[in-house]
Amino acid sequence: MDKHIDLNCDMGESFGAYTLGQDEALMDYVSSVNIACGFHAGDAVVMQRTVTLAAQKGLAIGAHPGYPDLQGFGRRAIQLDANEVYAIVLYQVGALRAFAEAAGSRLNHVKPHGALYNTAAKDRALASAIAGAVRDAGDNLVLVGLSGSHLIDEGRQLGLRTLSEVFADRTYQDDGTLTPRTAANALISDTAGAIKQVLQMVGEGTVTAVSGKTILVEAQTICIHGDGAHALTFARSLAEQLHQHHVSIKHP
Amino acid sequence: MDKHIDLNCDMGESFGAYTLGQDEALMDYVSSVNIACGFHAGDAVVMQRTVTLAAQKGLAIGAHPGYPDLQGFGRRAIQLDANEVYAIVLYQVGALRAFAEAAGSRLNHVKPHGALYNTAAKDRALASAIAGAVRDAGDNLVLVGLSGSHLIDEGRQLGLRTLSEVFADRTYQDDGTLTPRTAANALISDTAGAIKQVLQMVGEGTVTAVSGKTILVEAQTICIHGDGAHALTFARSLAEQLHQHHVSIKHP
Amino acid sequence: MDKHIDLNCDMGESFGAYTLGQDEALMDYVSSVNIACGFHAGDAVVMQRTVTLAAQKGLAIGAHPGYPDLQGFGRRAIQLDANEVYAIVLYQVGALRAFAEAAGSRLNHVKPHGALYNTAAKDRALASAIAGAVRDAGDNLVLVGLSGSHLIDEGRQLGLRTLSEVFADRTYQDDGTLTPRTAANALISDTAGAIKQVLQMVGEGTVTAVSGKTILVEAQTICIHGDGAHALTFARSLAEQLHQHHVSIKHP
Amino acid sequence: MDKHIDLNCDMGESFGAYTLGQDEALMDYVSSVNIACGFHAGDAVVMQRTVTLAAQKGLAIGAHPGYPDLQGFGRRAIQLDANEVYAIVLYQVGALRAFAEAAGSRLNHVKPHGALYNTAAKDRALASAIAGAVRDAGDNLVLVGLSGSHLIDEGRQLGLRTLSEVFADRTYQDDGTLTPRTAANALISDTAGAIKQVLQMVGEGTVTAVSGKTILVEAQTICIHGDGAHALTFARSLAEQLHQHHVSIKHP
Repeated sequence: MDKHIDLNCDMGESFGAYTLGQDEALMDYVSSVNIACGFHAGDAVVMQRTVTLAAQKGLAIGAHPGYPDLQGFGRRAIQLDANEVYAIVLYQVGALRAFAEAAGSRLNHVKPHGALYNTAAKDRALASAIAGAVRDAGDNLVLVGLSGSHLIDEGRQLGLRTLSEVFADRTYQDDGTLTPRTAANALISDTAGAIKQVLQMVGEGTVTAVSGKTILVEAQTICIHGDGAHALTFARSLAEQLHQHHVSIKHP
Repeated sequence: MDKHIDLNCDMGESFGAYTLGQDEALMDYVSSVNIACGFHAGDAVVMQRTVTLAAQKGLAIGAHPGYPDLQGFGRRAIQLDANEVYAIVLYQVGALRAFAEAAGSRLNHVKPHGALYNTAAKDRALASAIAGAVRDAGDNLVLVGLSGSHLIDEGRQLGLRTLSEVFADRTYQDDGTLTPRTAANALISDTAGAIKQVLQMVGEGTVTAVSGKTILVEAQTICIHGDGAHALTFARSLAEQLHQHHVSIKHP
Repeated sequence: MDKHIDLNCDMGESFGAYTLGQDEALMDYVSSVNIACGFHAGDAVVMQRTVTLAAQKGLAIGAHPGYPDLQGFGRRAIQLDANEVYAIVLYQVGALRAFAEAAGSRLNHVKPHGALYNTAAKDRALASAIAGAVRDAGDNLVLVGLSGSHLIDEGRQLGLRTLSEVFADRTYQDDGTLTPRTAANALISDTAGAIKQVLQMVGEGTVTAVSGKTILVEAQTICIHGDGAHALTFARSLAEQLHQHHVSIKHP
Repeated sequence: MDKHIDLNCDMGESFGAYTLGQDEALMDYVSSVNIACGFHAGDAVVMQRTVTLAAQKGLAIGAHPGYPDLQGFGRRAIQLDANEVYAIVLYQVGALRAFAEAAGSRLNHVKPHGALYNTAAKDRALASAIAGAVRDAGDNLVLVGLSGSHLIDEGRQLGLRTLSEVFADRTYQDDGTLTPRTAANALISDTAGAIKQVLQMVGEGTVTAVSGKTILVEAQTICIHGDGAHALTFARSLAEQLHQHHVSIKHP
């Protein structure tokens, strides 16, 4: 194959009696997973099970730390200061890593979740706190963040390995930020449109913003969602299309 | 000095706006600390601060995992199965370890807290789950448990290093178990009595049960409490008495 | 119609991003609902939505208080003392009642959930604490408990109105207790069997225990489950069968 | 006496093993109390105990709802929408009211806590949501908010009884808002200064802002803090000074 791309998916988002996503099935179509760490989703038992599955399938295992807000699924920003953000990220990374190592694997990367991800894209102080936690966690972990974000920038400044993330089914603004979920056109709901966006990102390094403008993006890893009704169908279709376009799915 | 003993104390039990204990002052009189991991007490910021202090003072740093019950301070048993206990212990150990390593130190030991400690003394299946989590956490961690407990036994069977713990100010039953906290005579409230008990434990390897009977105990580490009004005075007196009896305070 | 029976169902068990059950559809087949109060399931938004739906459909609205254990869905007993149980029940009842009254309805009954329900069946002190909380909540609330349980007994001793509950799809032991969920034969998985059990309970006031023995039960309200795949089909079939047997579904 | 003023204090902020404040002693110097409802502080047992004490002393009992953030003590804003704010306020009001009624008293008022209080002062949509919850809770409850805030305004628009609150030991900006706690001069730390401010507020209806400017305030209830080291001494001194100035302390 000529090219390769990392496909990642958020997983381990079930909690207690509540099931979310089709983790096991989706694992066949991605190269890396970001596993919730019990703050916004997931619990210790779910983490253990999800990490073990991912280890068995040889996927790159990432911690997916979020705000401490199970009810809001980590999608509601909480006014934490930099010190608090540093501490909750380090805490969650450590917890997830223990499961990865117990499963005979290792922790590969860290990707903040939801509101923490979005805040880290725009707020330099918090981006720096997150990057600092990832550095202090050791093990040469990769920091995953929104392409063009402060988070990626802060990670690079601290000498971390970073991966710039783009989204298969989220639309983009002219400045390269994601259209907020509250907007009507935040999501690309048709499979063909999302696949087209991915192929353009991988092939051209660009994305067409909602305004119609073509903008540059650094697409080192592509996030696909695991919680929709058609998540599995989409993942399968995307994998096929990438294969036909001679793009292999693998972690860098 | 002729002898030496490990003095340990539970620490990091503050939470958010709530302060508990006099951690920093007490650190001058102990050789190892067991730090709460956010489930029954402590939070990520408190953990970071407490671990950093302990690292600066060169103390042996331990994780102190408990039941997920902040309101009950981990003193109310929750009906978890072995798989759940395994997962919550591994989770908490991983989280605490991340702070220890970020502070330039390392995690030395694991000691369950409160109701989890008591359950692990008597319930073989849960003792085995805890020991398994400590083994799977790697790093050759030491497992600390009640002297003569199933937990110590299960740890040894898994090949773990173990430390048998005795208590300075708790009274004992004829079978070597602690008098339950609900009993009137559960605690030794006078300093002289508690110091006398420690010296007997260290010097003779015995303790006088509430019945008056002398029983054997394995005293590899002695727990002193950090949350009472006289905790600091007691720690200072105990340290002086141990010094006068040529017993040095240090981690094995 | 010759007879009537109250059909009740636990509802409002979704939480944040997690959906559980088909509350709205099931409301067409029951006469009363027990709504989770945010401790073992549900959250304030879910409570508000569920109570409003139930009020619109004219159902008897009940509070369904549980242990504070979202992760365990209230199915893991926690070692609370009587004072703690009293307080958490009164708290949850008050919270749910506020939504009922805001929806222009009123709170009708209280039914403990899961492990709290089971504990209240066998532990007289905790049964008394729950009954006391229901009495102190005022409004002449009905206390719902397992037929033949200490909870019903304690409620009657305090002069409360009570409803003895039986289960459509749970099997029974010779002493009238439910077969524990951990047992293989705890649930009646076929619709016909469960409907047959209901008709016998309503028609004869008896149930056939797993041993084959016929035992007496007081069947004042019948619980059907809302969280299984076939919950809706079952509810519809049961309603039809009751209709054919001239048993109307209504709250006393 | 010529005048009278309501003195209020936030109480019931202990949680589980964590004690905060000197509630019982302070109750002798205030006319109304705002009791935490378990979201940012307090738990069901603490609520029951605090409400019962307040009822015995004949104080006006208020619910003190906050953001669901025990770790941040409700002082960190969480990005809730109006519907979520409505629901968490109604929930907490209902829970606290159950304890008030069980204690033979009644719920008198509602005062939001911390970040929710501050947000409600400036954000009209959330202020409206809170006022709506207080209205829907029924019982003609009084809404307490910052003097001059959107919360007071929204409450009045809904026809609620309101009480405009001023602070004994917080400093003011020219626009009548409180100096943020993050600022060095947010608090008046000397007793004499705080008492002088109270007397000016009660006597003149004005306060001297940090700029030196005299601004109008509506002082219908004065908040004193219960969690500092000198809280009790201050309360006693303030009560004496008010007495000497012929101002009686009582709820309107």
